[in-house]
Amino acid sequence: MADTADFIDLRSDTVTKPSAEMRDAARDAEVGDDVYRDDPTVNELERRAAAAVGTEAAIYVPSGTMANQIAIHVHTEPGQELLLERESHVYRWELAGASKLSGVQTRTIDAGERCVPTPEAVAEGLVEEDLHRPGTGLLSLENTHNFRGGTAIPIGEIAAAAETARDAAVPVHLDGARVFNAAVALGVDASEIVAPVDSVTFCLSKGLGAPVGSILAGDEEFVEAARRVRKLFGGGMRQVGMIAAPGLLALENVDRLADDHANAERLAAGLDALDGVAAPEPDTNIVVARTEAAGLPAGDLVDACDDAGVGGVEFDDYTTRFTTHLDVDDTDVDDAIERIGHAVTELSN
Amino acid sequence: MADTADFIDLRSDTVTKPSAEMRDAARDAEVGDDVYRDDPTVNELERRAAAAVGTEAAIYVPSGTMANQIAIHVHTEPGQELLLERESHVYRWELAGASKLSGVQTRTIDAGERCVPTPEAVAEGLVEEDLHRPGTGLLSLENTHNFRGGTAIPIGEIAAAAETARDAAVPVHLDGARVFNAAVALGVDASEIVAPVDSVTFCLSKGLGAPVGSILAGDEEFVEAARRVRKLFGGGMRQVGMIAAPGLLALENVDRLADDHANAERLAAGLDALDGVAAPEPDTNIVVARTEAAGLPAGDLVDACDDAGVGGVEFDDYTTRFTTHLDVDDTDVDDAIERIGHAVTELSN
Amino acid sequence: MADTADFIDLRSDTVTKPSAEMRDAARDAEVGDDVYRDDPTVNELERRAAAAVGTEAAIYVPSGTMANQIAIHVHTEPGQELLLERESHVYRWELAGASKLSGVQTRTIDAGERCVPTPEAVAEGLVEEDLHRPGTGLLSLENTHNFRGGTAIPIGEIAAAAETARDAAVPVHLDGARVFNAAVALGVDASEIVAPVDSVTFCLSKGLGAPVGSILAGDEEFVEAARRVRKLFGGGMRQVGMIAAPGLLALENVDRLADDHANAERLAAGLDALDGVAAPEPDTNIVVARTEAAGLPAGDLVDACDDAGVGGVEFDDYTTRFTTHLDVDDTDVDDAIERIGHAVTELSN
Amino acid sequence: MADTADFIDLRSDTVTKPSAEMRDAARDAEVGDDVYRDDPTVNELERRAAAAVGTEAAIYVPSGTMANQIAIHVHTEPGQELLLERESHVYRWELAGASKLSGVQTRTIDAGERCVPTPEAVAEGLVEEDLHRPGTGLLSLENTHNFRGGTAIPIGEIAAAAETARDAAVPVHLDGARVFNAAVALGVDASEIVAPVDSVTFCLSKGLGAPVGSILAGDEEFVEAARRVRKLFGGGMRQVGMIAAPGLLALENVDRLADDHANAERLAAGLDALDGVAAPEPDTNIVVARTEAAGLPAGDLVDACDDAGVGGVEFDDYTTRFTTHLDVDDTDVDDAIERIGHAVTELSN
Repeated sequence: MADTADFIDLRSDTVTKPSAEMRDAARDAEVGDDVYRDDPTVNELERRAAAAVGTEAAIYVPSGTMANQIAIHVHTEPGQELLLERESHVYRWELAGASKLSGVQTRTIDAGERCVPTPEAVAEGLVEEDLHRPGTGLLSLENTHNFRGGTAIPIGEIAAAAETARDAAVPVHLDGARVFNAAVALGVDASEIVAPVDSVTFCLSKGLGAPVGSILAGDEEFVEAARRVRKLFGGGMRQVGMIAAPGLLALENVDRLADDHANAERLAAGLDALDGVAAPEPDTNIVVARTEAAGLPAGDLVDACDDAGVGGVEFDDYTTRFTTHLDVDDTDVDDAIERIGHAVTELSN
Repeated sequence: MADTADFIDLRSDTVTKPSAEMRDAARDAEVGDDVYRDDPTVNELERRAAAAVGTEAAIYVPSGTMANQIAIHVHTEPGQELLLERESHVYRWELAGASKLSGVQTRTIDAGERCVPTPEAVAEGLVEEDLHRPGTGLLSLENTHNFRGGTAIPIGEIAAAAETARDAAVPVHLDGARVFNAAVALGVDASEIVAPVDSVTFCLSKGLGAPVGSILAGDEEFVEAARRVRKLFGGGMRQVGMIAAPGLLALENVDRLADDHANAERLAAGLDALDGVAAPEPDTNIVVARTEAAGLPAGDLVDACDDAGVGGVEFDDYTTRFTTHLDVDDTDVDDAIERIGHAVTELSN
Repeated sequence: MADTADFIDLRSDTVTKPSAEMRDAARDAEVGDDVYRDDPTVNELERRAAAAVGTEAAIYVPSGTMANQIAIHVHTEPGQELLLERESHVYRWELAGASKLSGVQTRTIDAGERCVPTPEAVAEGLVEEDLHRPGTGLLSLENTHNFRGGTAIPIGEIAAAAETARDAAVPVHLDGARVFNAAVALGVDASEIVAPVDSVTFCLSKGLGAPVGSILAGDEEFVEAARRVRKLFGGGMRQVGMIAAPGLLALENVDRLADDHANAERLAAGLDALDGVAAPEPDTNIVVARTEAAGLPAGDLVDACDDAGVGGVEFDDYTTRFTTHLDVDDTDVDDAIERIGHAVTELSN
Repeated sequence: MADTADFIDLRSDTVTKPSAEMRDAARDAEVGDDVYRDDPTVNELERRAAAAVGTEAAIYVPSGTMANQIAIHVHTEPGQELLLERESHVYRWELAGASKLSGVQTRTIDAGERCVPTPEAVAEGLVEEDLHRPGTGLLSLENTHNFRGGTAIPIGEIAAAAETARDAAVPVHLDGARVFNAAVALGVDASEIVAPVDSVTFCLSKGLGAPVGSILAGDEEFVEAARRVRKLFGGGMRQVGMIAAPGLLALENVDRLADDHANAERLAAGLDALDGVAAPEPDTNIVVARTEAAGLPAGDLVDACDDAGVGGVEFDDYTTRFTTHLDVDDTDVDDAIERIGHAVTELSN
């Protein structure tokens, strides 16, 4: 990352700095040893996190990856199949953890441009166990869908996919790292999105602005089992209240995600107007800029943007992701458009 | 299976009974303890099997599944990806062994109707390892391709796919359970098909007619490593010459696979002529009959055929497989067509 | 192995050559495809094998290692503990398969010179699952105990150890690779030894003289599950009757194990009389010769014996194993003693 | 835990509350996204942690368990053996993670009362890989040794054990969760203890008083590999500076561990004077009280102490652990002795 004082960091919504209130909350947190379940702040966070997504219980974990991997470990047995979308985070970016840590075989659904698996696609992907075939142990969905540009999958479509699996006695996990972005974009409560699934991951440290941590939520039996697996994976921590306290404040940040979405829309419009750049209108806070038409590789664009004072990440050969978040306002967005525009122009010459 | 005296068993080419010569060879085999490498017959079989596919070395194993799983275990490390065709045997019918026994994540290529992965599809499926992504550890191909109806994939296409992987320093395994069927269909030597890959499985107990066993072949270092993994998986046996001796005779059965192919062609033509049945002309000894047009589920057809004295297997909702082999001649094929015709007619009424 | 015409091969009872009757039985076996359960000979063998050890059911597998590893896989879940004796075959010589293929942590019992774990030792080794600790998933015992010299563990001691585990709801597997040697030595029926355990492995290809194969026996539910795991491990074979037929004859060879035991006793007495060699009176067919007093490394002794025309195996720095079997008679034993005596004398000079 | 205002919590040194300075440091920490390596505070912590133990590099992880499990994963390959002490934390309390997550078979050394494995014991435990045997992949040592009562193993003994392994090309990991307690007790620098090993875990959240986190240290190549495995296990966090800042202060707390040791000695003397209680003089901050003589089960004692306002943990049937730390002073210790004395007296009546 270029060390520009006014660098506009759009690499991810994970880069947000904790607010002054969050820092004060960390300092003042009442804490205890969470491995003994003695930390009142994390206990409160787990209660409120469960309430926020409408589940019986929840557990705080260091990362979204751990939340997803614990869910897979609890729901499946080695030798089963994990059915999931081909561009999902669990499949692309979690180091084959599902197969390495849980021994499950991945089966992917190609869900098209918007990454919404249809019930038919789910049905086709479900495998019944027999002497030769591993049975499906879990369906994992993702909302919003990161790789496809923060797609907010409508409740009905999540429900239809989930119902197809559950009708076949296959549990469903939702990687809702940004499920509150989906809720805000869809104008619903997150609990409505979560209702049809068995467990859900969401991140406090992305758009909600907490420095550290994610939540894994589900029913009490599931969360009890998750607690043991968290220990196995090394996610059991001690005076967690220090980072859970900012997490409590992060839960207050749901409504303001609308600002990030407005900024992302503004950014996409600005980028789409650039010559050789296609940036479809985003559902939420993730803008994907495609530069194939300009013959401009994403890696080059990322480097040039970095030099110009804007952070982005390469998603694909010709796809760059820019993400809005609470440390970025509309002026930053306008500046970013201008800087990226310069970068594109220079690279195209 | 119906206990009809003249049952025509087309379930698989694995059902062949050993010939009188094979039985005599078993009786007369010179044997020793193969775990100590003292069995001269299996040593001879391994030498001749390697020669038959043009590799440095080979090892005898109890089944094609073990051969494939050993290859995956030797070539990969846990946490890598295994790239393979979506309808391949390794992916569909080996109980998720790749993920369970070797900890690799499967990534599938949709290779279309004939299951030939293009170099472009391979290239797209290769993943370079980074902090977040598992790298590709192995490309696994299949020739002939079972599920798609014994497709014989031309040498050039196997070579192009393999070369794409090897250019990226990714080894290539060929599940050639029926690689001699491919060789005969293509009019080439099996070693030409195998030349571009790093290891190959082939079965003595399918079209070649041996009672038991498969071969895993590759270079000496690979086979040495495979020997240890065979022990781990429990495939180390003792006076193996008893079943290796028929295997030696099986290697003489390559040319006669042409008869099976002719019989399969005759069978497909007969079935395709039936109302509501589509049976494309086969490349080798596997006929797939599609009965969707007749609204006839494969499960029902298999049962009705069994009652009528013909064995087949359900591949899919509306796809039934019939396989020719050395215990079936042209008269049997004509009888089978007639019996299957009756079964279809009755079911369609 | 030296290529002496009259080499006396005492490396293992696995080296026995199939008898003429076994060879004829192989030739004449009625066979079918065992993956489809169509092989009448293996079906008969599985029935008779189950009867021989008094269990509901049994399954034929390629090796004792596979039988043990399947048992572990069926009885345990990854992350549990496998409790077993420190010098047991499963722990020493199966390539860490329990941990690698089934994800269980091994906990060892030091059971003293004769390798009989006391109920107290078992009780101490059982671990109750909690948030931090893996629970015990299986107790594995071994009878006769190979490494300690074919020790025949009395029924009561097996029963006491097994009962301790089963009282804690922990299943018990018996690696009875040579359980019939134990039965003959103890003068009981094998089913009496097996009665207190949940599953048992025994080998047809050791003292019983079959060329290939082992049996895994237990109740019907267990064997059904084992059948699927055998497929996973690649142990599903086709016209198995060819090697199952000699296995049926091997079941007739139980009583004659007494001859091997008498020969082993004769051999041990002969070796123990040699200067610098200690060979305790064996329970069964395994003689261990300790040459620490003579300062004679086992590796050197094995090489010298090989040159002198006797096969043995190195067990330990100063322990060499010699095993009697049906291809060795009392004359061979006397010859072996003489040859080993020469080897020891020469090495000691 | 009893909700007594003046509860003296001796369950573990993990229960310490962060100091006011640590809380301020958390509030004021300069942070960034550590997954992108942008967090200056954690970067500084990793540099200083490495310096504190004299290694090239270090990485911050959520827990000591994760640090140990990452080390095992990096050093070994599935199917190797992990050699470690029978009462070590890795073996007892990490949920069989070594076997489940890394596929290694555990082999234990019985190292006697003080848990110091002799070079002879290590040498005996090392296994050379062959066709049948898994080779040793890692020796794991522990200093101080928790279960045996905070034993501080002298440098020479660690070095001798480590050298034995390294001479056989086997790497060595040190679970030094409390390595600074050992250093202080032995009057040496921690780097001297660490010098003979390849990697070391130490905890910021135990005696050093940080709220959260542990360090895994080694050479640069090792730490680079560890960074990827941390991601796999879900230990990659974002604005880690919030909890790394207190960790930096924790590194200043090394010298004051002497106070905890003095308090532990005082506590042990007090408890040992109680009727029916044996509490040997501790090396460091862990006191184990044995109550077998009084026929007093540890579970009962823990409950009674809890009622009386003192926290301890059950280690064994008749062994209870009490741990001193920076939230406990000598007055607390005297109070604790009195309260435990009452509890023992009442239970003994």
